[in-house]
Amino acid sequence: MKFCSNCGEPVVRRVPPGDSLPRDICDACGSIHYVNPKLVLGTIPVWEEGGQARLLLCRRAIEPRYGYWTLPAGFMENGESTGEAAARETLEEAGANIELESVFSMISVPYVNQVHVFYRARLLDLEFKPGVESLEVALFEESKLPWKDIAFRTVGVTLKHWFADHARGAFGFHAEDIK
Amino acid sequence: MKFCSNCGEPVVRRVPPGDSLPRDICDACGSIHYVNPKLVLGTIPVWEEGGQARLLLCRRAIEPRYGYWTLPAGFMENGESTGEAAARETLEEAGANIELESVFSMISVPYVNQVHVFYRARLLDLEFKPGVESLEVALFEESKLPWKDIAFRTVGVTLKHWFADHARGAFGFHAEDIK
Repeated sequence: MKFCSNCGEPVVRRVPPGDSLPRDICDACGSIHYVNPKLVLGTIPVWEEGGQARLLLCRRAIEPRYGYWTLPAGFMENGESTGEAAARETLEEAGANIELESVFSMISVPYVNQVHVFYRARLLDLEFKPGVESLEVALFEESKLPWKDIAFRTVGVTLKHWFADHARGAFGFHAEDIK
Repeated sequence: MKFCSNCGEPVVRRVPPGDSLPRDICDACGSIHYVNPKLVLGTIPVWEEGGQARLLLCRRAIEPRYGYWTLPAGFMENGESTGEAAARETLEEAGANIELESVFSMISVPYVNQVHVFYRARLLDLEFKPGVESLEVALFEESKLPWKDIAFRTVGVTLKHWFADHARGAFGFHAEDIK
């Protein structure tokens, strides 16, 4: 931030009285501008048939990580709940009709100031199709999953927990950090 | 937002190409300014002695909700993990030394663009003392809790879940929305 979003004057970076961290401060209008981590919400959409589980992944049509595979996910918007954000991103990126299940993972990524949260989800049909941010959308069983071409570490960690929990027949909640 | 934080020129609010929501856009430098929900992180610090559990609450010395009781919590900062934010807020507001346990609740509050997350925590000693944002800090057993003077609904919901889970002897993870 270089200029005050309230009055347009240049800001300076220093620790405000009573605070412990430097902020962007406007000495013209007195505004203090706080910047906080962003939430990324997504789902793990599953299609179970004949005793086999397959998960829905999207191949990214945008940077970062163009061409790599990811779970449907994106930035939570103001006015949404976490579940609404997860379902919206799943529809936008994968055109997928889902029923949301439990919150499955919450992974902090402090070096990019993000927290990624994934819900378990049940695909309601096979009518999915790529949105504008996806090159393709496909179902993968565990042995066919493109493990070397996963876009983000939070997605890889979430997928590993999902298959482990699925194998033992009980889904937990997984909170961890990637540093 | 009235002015571009990148170049200081006035912004206009409209839907960018390929987007579905209005954003603050700078036609001078091309910046699009996104605003997203904020994470509030806190803990439920417990002191167990003689078979009785007491929880640590802080009486707020700041607005909003000056004088009301809350769990120690506050805005997550850039560069932190969720657990680091929860522990820092507990130390700042209650001077409390804790050991973090599991993530206990995640509550969306879309009408204020926030998500509140609380960790279970074990008090390591009784050396707690109010920080600058607290009037006082005290331990409460369930029957003595100031239920009518709780500052925020996310805190009340979290406390109710905690005592219910404690009574049944098993702590879960609780995700819900307050609308």
